[in-house]
Amino acid sequence: MKEYKRLPQHIGIIPDGNRRWAQCNGLNKQDGYDYGINPGLELFKECLRLGIKELTFYGFTQDNTKRPAIQTKAFQKACVDSVLKLLDYDCNILVVGNTNSPLFPKELIPYTKRTTIGKGLINVNFLINYGWDWDLNHAFVDEHITEKGHFIDKIASSQISRMDLIIRWGNRRRLSGFLPVQSIYADFYVLDQMWPDFKIEHLHEALEWYQVQDVTLGG
Amino acid sequence: MKEYKRLPQHIGIIPDGNRRWAQCNGLNKQDGYDYGINPGLELFKECLRLGIKELTFYGFTQDNTKRPAIQTKAFQKACVDSVLKLLDYDCNILVVGNTNSPLFPKELIPYTKRTTIGKGLINVNFLINYGWDWDLNHAFVDEHITEKGHFIDKIASSQISRMDLIIRWGNRRRLSGFLPVQSIYADFYVLDQMWPDFKIEHLHEALEWYQVQDVTLGG
Repeated sequence: MKEYKRLPQHIGIIPDGNRRWAQCNGLNKQDGYDYGINPGLELFKECLRLGIKELTFYGFTQDNTKRPAIQTKAFQKACVDSVLKLLDYDCNILVVGNTNSPLFPKELIPYTKRTTIGKGLINVNFLINYGWDWDLNHAFVDEHITEKGHFIDKIASSQISRMDLIIRWGNRRRLSGFLPVQSIYADFYVLDQMWPDFKIEHLHEALEWYQVQDVTLGG
Repeated sequence: MKEYKRLPQHIGIIPDGNRRWAQCNGLNKQDGYDYGINPGLELFKECLRLGIKELTFYGFTQDNTKRPAIQTKAFQKACVDSVLKLLDYDCNILVVGNTNSPLFPKELIPYTKRTTIGKGLINVNFLINYGWDWDLNHAFVDEHITEKGHFIDKIASSQISRMDLIIRWGNRRRLSGFLPVQSIYADFYVLDQMWPDFKIEHLHEALEWYQVQDVTLGG
């Protein structure tokens, strides 16, 4: 059982590569998402054990929903199933995304307010039908624009804290719109493996690497 | 003379590692910045030759100015010298940063409006006394908040286009507040070498890598 001197408070997860994995394994593209559900649960359980305080999964974006309908349905279902699986664990669930759209899964509406399950030991956030510009633009909608305070407190994802570490599977070295405000100072670790090939060692590989990164926050 | 099939339109440059380089070379920390000026010019000239359309250098941030005054003065001077050196070349210079502060170098005020030099073959932007929250918050200042249009057109850096490729020297895999809106879809290439050890091959290494990245823009 590994322990770390220096743990990130908040880890962001970009679980990419489901479609490429499916194709490499002789499946249709949309079949990959289903194989990404258990990896998410395994990763969550290890973070819970390690004492990580917050975890954010990049579910799907408004841009993603421009893909063929059969794929959109498949990743919507995988995201819903991923959230509902956490109802057996001590966590605080929050879903952030544009609910004013038929593409937002109705089953997740209750979790758009932070919901404590059991002892609520870890905050787990899912971005569902999310968009980086939707997120930032939220600060400009009429009911917020006249409120006092910094715009950062008015963006749609304002309840999600700054990320310390972002881990991306599937070999692409870009953020793809993942929480532009909260990713500002995050250390960014990329794995070549596709998300359905997740192994718990990938998380530890990223945490080992994180041990030797220094936090400067621009200072 | 290398040529590429697929060129990024806009490259972002994070020239990090000047202080660490100075220390490794028996100098005081602040002495490193001066050795970062020529690398910037060499990189610019190669981008001009290759036909890159836009180049953005991460000069210094408002956070950086919290460092000891002797360091702040050194990077301010290095940034001013870097901008002025470009006056001998065909480019369009733009400096973006908070000018309402004594920490903004007065010599660069003229370039806070895009300035065409000679044939203006490439846009070159410098972030000087920049802050990611200052940039975004600009859309909220009174004279802009009531204007029509998307908030992205009202941020302080709105004249800087989306970046395709970001190259960072000095081994750190984070964005450190570098243009949160324009970095959304950028591919991110990190070099172990410190910025004063810049070699033209580093740029080509990043461009070779960029050849095999696919652009999805979330689709």
